[in-house]
Amino acid sequence: MGKKRKLSSKKLLGQVPGSVIYTGNKPDQKLFIEAFDYTKDKYIEKELINVEECFNFEYGSITWININGLNHVDAIEKIGDHYELHPLVLEDIVNVSQRPKIDEYDDYIFIALKMLYYDTNDKMVSEQVSFVLGKDYVLSFQEAEGDVFDNVRDRIRNNKGRVRTLQSDYLLYVLIDSIVDHYFSVIEVLGDKIEDFESEIFSGNINDDISKDIQNLKREILRVRRAIFPLREVINRIEKNENTLIQKKTITYYRDVYDHLIQVSENIDIYREMIWGLMDMYMTTISNKMNEVMKVLTIMASIFIPLTFIAGIYGMNFEYIPELKYKYSYFILWGVMVVLFLGMLYYFKKKKWL
Amino acid sequence: MGKKRKLSSKKLLGQVPGSVIYTGNKPDQKLFIEAFDYTKDKYIEKELINVEECFNFEYGSITWININGLNHVDAIEKIGDHYELHPLVLEDIVNVSQRPKIDEYDDYIFIALKMLYYDTNDKMVSEQVSFVLGKDYVLSFQEAEGDVFDNVRDRIRNNKGRVRTLQSDYLLYVLIDSIVDHYFSVIEVLGDKIEDFESEIFSGNINDDISKDIQNLKREILRVRRAIFPLREVINRIEKNENTLIQKKTITYYRDVYDHLIQVSENIDIYREMIWGLMDMYMTTISNKMNEVMKVLTIMASIFIPLTFIAGIYGMNFEYIPELKYKYSYFILWGVMVVLFLGMLYYFKKKKWL
Amino acid sequence: MGKKRKLSSKKLLGQVPGSVIYTGNKPDQKLFIEAFDYTKDKYIEKELINVEECFNFEYGSITWININGLNHVDAIEKIGDHYELHPLVLEDIVNVSQRPKIDEYDDYIFIALKMLYYDTNDKMVSEQVSFVLGKDYVLSFQEAEGDVFDNVRDRIRNNKGRVRTLQSDYLLYVLIDSIVDHYFSVIEVLGDKIEDFESEIFSGNINDDISKDIQNLKREILRVRRAIFPLREVINRIEKNENTLIQKKTITYYRDVYDHLIQVSENIDIYREMIWGLMDMYMTTISNKMNEVMKVLTIMASIFIPLTFIAGIYGMNFEYIPELKYKYSYFILWGVMVVLFLGMLYYFKKKKWL
Amino acid sequence: MGKKRKLSSKKLLGQVPGSVIYTGNKPDQKLFIEAFDYTKDKYIEKELINVEECFNFEYGSITWININGLNHVDAIEKIGDHYELHPLVLEDIVNVSQRPKIDEYDDYIFIALKMLYYDTNDKMVSEQVSFVLGKDYVLSFQEAEGDVFDNVRDRIRNNKGRVRTLQSDYLLYVLIDSIVDHYFSVIEVLGDKIEDFESEIFSGNINDDISKDIQNLKREILRVRRAIFPLREVINRIEKNENTLIQKKTITYYRDVYDHLIQVSENIDIYREMIWGLMDMYMTTISNKMNEVMKVLTIMASIFIPLTFIAGIYGMNFEYIPELKYKYSYFILWGVMVVLFLGMLYYFKKKKWL
Amino acid sequence: MGKKRKLSSKKLLGQVPGSVIYTGNKPDQKLFIEAFDYTKDKYIEKELINVEECFNFEYGSITWININGLNHVDAIEKIGDHYELHPLVLEDIVNVSQRPKIDEYDDYIFIALKMLYYDTNDKMVSEQVSFVLGKDYVLSFQEAEGDVFDNVRDRIRNNKGRVRTLQSDYLLYVLIDSIVDHYFSVIEVLGDKIEDFESEIFSGNINDDISKDIQNLKREILRVRRAIFPLREVINRIEKNENTLIQKKTITYYRDVYDHLIQVSENIDIYREMIWGLMDMYMTTISNKMNEVMKVLTIMASIFIPLTFIAGIYGMNFEYIPELKYKYSYFILWGVMVVLFLGMLYYFKKKKWL
Repeated sequence: MGKKRKLSSKKLLGQVPGSVIYTGNKPDQKLFIEAFDYTKDKYIEKELINVEECFNFEYGSITWININGLNHVDAIEKIGDHYELHPLVLEDIVNVSQRPKIDEYDDYIFIALKMLYYDTNDKMVSEQVSFVLGKDYVLSFQEAEGDVFDNVRDRIRNNKGRVRTLQSDYLLYVLIDSIVDHYFSVIEVLGDKIEDFESEIFSGNINDDISKDIQNLKREILRVRRAIFPLREVINRIEKNENTLIQKKTITYYRDVYDHLIQVSENIDIYREMIWGLMDMYMTTISNKMNEVMKVLTIMASIFIPLTFIAGIYGMNFEYIPELKYKYSYFILWGVMVVLFLGMLYYFKKKKWL
Repeated sequence: MGKKRKLSSKKLLGQVPGSVIYTGNKPDQKLFIEAFDYTKDKYIEKELINVEECFNFEYGSITWININGLNHVDAIEKIGDHYELHPLVLEDIVNVSQRPKIDEYDDYIFIALKMLYYDTNDKMVSEQVSFVLGKDYVLSFQEAEGDVFDNVRDRIRNNKGRVRTLQSDYLLYVLIDSIVDHYFSVIEVLGDKIEDFESEIFSGNINDDISKDIQNLKREILRVRRAIFPLREVINRIEKNENTLIQKKTITYYRDVYDHLIQVSENIDIYREMIWGLMDMYMTTISNKMNEVMKVLTIMASIFIPLTFIAGIYGMNFEYIPELKYKYSYFILWGVMVVLFLGMLYYFKKKKWL
Repeated sequence: MGKKRKLSSKKLLGQVPGSVIYTGNKPDQKLFIEAFDYTKDKYIEKELINVEECFNFEYGSITWININGLNHVDAIEKIGDHYELHPLVLEDIVNVSQRPKIDEYDDYIFIALKMLYYDTNDKMVSEQVSFVLGKDYVLSFQEAEGDVFDNVRDRIRNNKGRVRTLQSDYLLYVLIDSIVDHYFSVIEVLGDKIEDFESEIFSGNINDDISKDIQNLKREILRVRRAIFPLREVINRIEKNENTLIQKKTITYYRDVYDHLIQVSENIDIYREMIWGLMDMYMTTISNKMNEVMKVLTIMASIFIPLTFIAGIYGMNFEYIPELKYKYSYFILWGVMVVLFLGMLYYFKKKKWL
Repeated sequence: MGKKRKLSSKKLLGQVPGSVIYTGNKPDQKLFIEAFDYTKDKYIEKELINVEECFNFEYGSITWININGLNHVDAIEKIGDHYELHPLVLEDIVNVSQRPKIDEYDDYIFIALKMLYYDTNDKMVSEQVSFVLGKDYVLSFQEAEGDVFDNVRDRIRNNKGRVRTLQSDYLLYVLIDSIVDHYFSVIEVLGDKIEDFESEIFSGNINDDISKDIQNLKREILRVRRAIFPLREVINRIEKNENTLIQKKTITYYRDVYDHLIQVSENIDIYREMIWGLMDMYMTTISNKMNEVMKVLTIMASIFIPLTFIAGIYGMNFEYIPELKYKYSYFILWGVMVVLFLGMLYYFKKKKWL
Repeated sequence: MGKKRKLSSKKLLGQVPGSVIYTGNKPDQKLFIEAFDYTKDKYIEKELINVEECFNFEYGSITWININGLNHVDAIEKIGDHYELHPLVLEDIVNVSQRPKIDEYDDYIFIALKMLYYDTNDKMVSEQVSFVLGKDYVLSFQEAEGDVFDNVRDRIRNNKGRVRTLQSDYLLYVLIDSIVDHYFSVIEVLGDKIEDFESEIFSGNINDDISKDIQNLKREILRVRRAIFPLREVINRIEKNENTLIQKKTITYYRDVYDHLIQVSENIDIYREMIWGLMDMYMTTISNKMNEVMKVLTIMASIFIPLTFIAGIYGMNFEYIPELKYKYSYFILWGVMVVLFLGMLYYFKKKKWL
């Protein structure tokens, strides 16, 4: 992460505002552009070889152009020119440390958000996705190939659901909805992790690593939180939007996405609170362990130190110690010691230390 | 719970929006539909065999149709068709991990909330209930049979209270009021549990299980909180509603429900704070116990280690130790030791360690 | 408290809304009604035998009817009928676990709040008081006799202050003001308790009971908080009121009450913060004590264990230990031991453990 | 403080609203009234012998009357009569436990706030100051002589700054500004105290007194906070004021005071957070100390207990112990013991306990 | 820091409002003024010898005058006279402990903020920068030479970006943007420090210094927070501004700065939370260490104290102890001791203490 941050700051310091400079850490990504163009009745799917091909789609159909590879800054600038995007929008598209945001312009709406999913190594991936919603098109920009949109592609191809019959605002909704749906699986994994920690701590497993792992989990939750919480405001502003790009009947769907986001957010906050509870439990477990250790020490010491003292007494070399002469002294002493021993055990039993 | 979550995410990922897919964990529930149709003067109660029967009630009367068994998705879709419900409403009805919400449409209002009660095994049940309020009907959807509406049925049957004389908005109020009333009994049980923990901790009972139980209780309170808090907003929006479905004179009743919710919420927040206090007390109790253990150890060691040292002195085999020869040495030594012993006891007494 | 809660839930579950059912725990309270009727020039004070007598007061004078004994539900219903109160108002009057609230109706305003005072056993009493303010009357409802209104009675009787010259809204203000004034004495007692705990903890008195007492005090503060905080909103709504029942010139007085409530609330929040500080101090005191115990143990063990080891050396029975034969060995050894002993003392002194 | 609180509650309970009763603890303060009357060209300064003299100032000049000695209730009532102040204003002036507040009347504005400064004994003084701003006068009321207004007097006398050229609203600003300026010196002292505590804790000085002192400092900060935070709202309301008493061009100055208050408030909140950090550091320091104590104990015990055991072995009196007869046994044993000793030291060194 | 604070308070107490008094701690800074004057087509850069030269720039071009050396109060007052700045603005410019703020006047806007960067010694510098934005000029005031504006100078000189083609409001944006960009590098350093602490604590390195360093880092974050958070409000007010000084098309750029500030703020809050987590981890690490120490002690004591007791038994001098006579007693005893020893080891192994 350190590396990436350095890059990002290199970008930010002293650049002309509106400079389109890629800030991510995948500079060798190859450019991959796919386009869908559809109306209710027909649909075209193309993998494009160069950017200019994007611009040939006829008027009247809905076009979705999905650009992968933010390192190809020149291609993105060409698209920006064609669709007349503001320079700051282009800057935001390639600045992958962007916070989820919405910017409304006269002819289009720009939305940036984070796509979260677990990759094949079970590591959380947080990839920035930007959307530009125009009257009859949606542009989507991703850092690399691999996304959560397969079901959207499927629906367009097979005319499932209502996506082919509605406008670009509905397409955008479907894309965002796919991303938000994946948030649920991400927080499910987080929830499972918390439960694992709990059972580990309950089972008395307390090493330093756990506190490290908890700290890491806390940070992961903070990251998810940071990706998701600002998005609520973004969706809320889409709902409140007075732009004609978002039609009134689509608003209902965005409200549904908003409800989902609220639900995810609440879960995240509950997880945060549970993690604080975990640390508390961890602390009490440590304290209880120490208590147990102390009890063993105290019991051993309290039983044997007095007995050793007694033995020490009769190890003294005074010439005149009457007991030493007496024949049964030794056995009587053993008896006394056993009684003392049992008395001690009883005492500790009563104190519930045993 | 893990199982259920998996199901819910399976549903959410990659489905067409508006797909009506049951997300609960009771797939074998049988369908059970009951209907009440009443005016001020007459009333009919029916257990329906199939969904279509619901649609025969005459105009002018108030109809309450209570559908149990969200797994019967086809039946719910038929009802949706008949009452012209939005697809997202149907999706929400069968998605049992729904957050309490209200959606206002032109001809009806959709409300989802959580019914909380303790079952016969003293386990908290959180079941989703959805309502659709129309001009002269209320639809209610439950995951399974068994609810908190018996007193409502009783009032309709026996014409108790004002329910038969008023409209569907009052019926909805009565149903929601029943659910909110049960929240009080749920938080009473939570309050009792907290008091139990308190007296257990006060009585010095501190094992690892308590911290586990407290953590579980904390989670239970979080669950209740999550069920209840969003409902305040829902009821508030009913109050502020400009829809003619909710009449002005019924608003007073909803305000009363709102007051109850605020009261429940405040109690929950107080319980949360008290649970934090419990953990604190638990920690101090552990520390006090350890203090006590340490004191026993210190007292035993401080008394007997010096005495043992003295005994050790006279166990040495030097040829010339004058005391050894003296006849009363042994008894004098005993005297010295007893004095030391008593001195120590006095010292610890003064320090209030004994 | 457990008992009372059970009663309250018995009431709440499954009752027709608007049912007037007493939820308190004083079912044997006798009914006691007193009435004041006054104008600027004359005044009548009566203890009433039955409810109907309340209704005879002439038009043009201000009437204050004070009803004690909420268990006499029938009497309250009669009053409700006469003054045309909404059924929910009557329900709220006799539901003593009510949260402070205000309900505005066309002809009257309903206010419920908590009267707090310390009884003769120095136990905090929290009694619900409800007011109904009409054009020329104030009704007050209390659970039992005994209240904080004696000075108000006195002012009416002796025409002190402005109460006789002004309207019913001023009378209501005077009554609420009396209640709020007593909040100050209640929080004074709480403040004194906190100071007592502080000096106890400072004086090193740390037993389990203190943490229990602090927990109890915390709960008491939570109760007071719950009684007082919602009242701010109530008074605020009186101030903002557009109802003609509250005259513009009286608003200044209500604003004064509001200021007092803010002041009380701030004190309560400061007390809460101080209590958290107390727990912290308690924890550090425990830790310091344990530190002290550990030091004693460490000092005793560190001094005498090595000395005992030396004594043990010369208690060995080897045939050839040269030192044993030497005449002054014993005395030299004592010297060595004393030096060791003093060295240890010096070391611990330097470490500031002594 | 206990005493004062008792007095204040005695006042509050059961008094007619608007009663002018002094609640402070300086009943023997002598009355001291000073008056400034000035225009741009001339100025008069007078020490007044009786209240009535205040009323002789001519129309057209600005008059500042500064009354010291709130115990002289009759004098204050006379002034109230002359300037036609509302009874509640007079009550607030002499109630020294007032919260900072502003009350706007038709002809004047009443402001109460706290003057904070350190007296000659380095003890924080919190004295209530009330202002009444009229068209051409400012009244100020203080509990006792001694204030922070010397530079204001100086400016009036010597016609420094703009005070003589502007109206009474600017005079009020100058007075409030003097008070707010002193808040900065008060929080500077608080900041210094926190730094002192930090260096004390860093230097390892941990006794019970520190936790007591920190608790006291926390309380002092709470007091300052309570004095300053509500004042922001007061100044804000002056800014927003629509009363003609505050002229538009003076608003800029009040905004400046407001900015200062925000700055002071932020500092206070930072101090609060730093104090919480102090307690944390204190706790870790205690724990570290205990760790150190435990290490000494463990090292001493772990080294000498095994050695003592070995010595004990050869102190046994068995008739047949072969080693006892061997001539070099004693020296070999010493060798073994030294090796053990060094091994232990090495082990503890490696564990970094030494 | 103590020194500086004293100076600042000396200034604040008792000064006439609007007095232009330098409150910083660099009284020997030499005055350095640079000016840029440019239109789209031409540009002049000058280092000015005296203040009056600033005033010669022709109408129609954009002028940026950058004044370094706030101690030269007279120069600043001359500039204030020329540009007709309000006395309070001048006071704020030279009061370096100013909070970030914006003041809008009719003809100009005053903005004060903090420039943060790490100097060559890796110490964070927080320097106050003030801007005055007029119709065709921007004045900037810095305490000392050395700033973050080099790229702005470069852009003006070489006509890079849009700065030369746009108005003074865009120039102000570019300057503020440079400052905000540097905030990112500052919080990157803070993030790195937190990671360093984490790995240090994870590696078990726990000395008192760490808690001191964490406390210092916490304070540094508080400082950054205090510099950055109020700036959000400032930029927000620029966005909302109705003044014609900020043109509509420039607003987009300020919104971009606002987004950056939100991002920085979120990072700061995440760092704060992570630091709290660090303290927790530190505490658990200490506790774990103590646990380990206690275990060593307990193992050593529990093993050797009983063995020593056994040796003590046979060191007693009773005349009749049968075992002493038996030839193999000694060896049997060794066997018993070894068995005991191994049993203990096994026991502690099973308890996972070894």
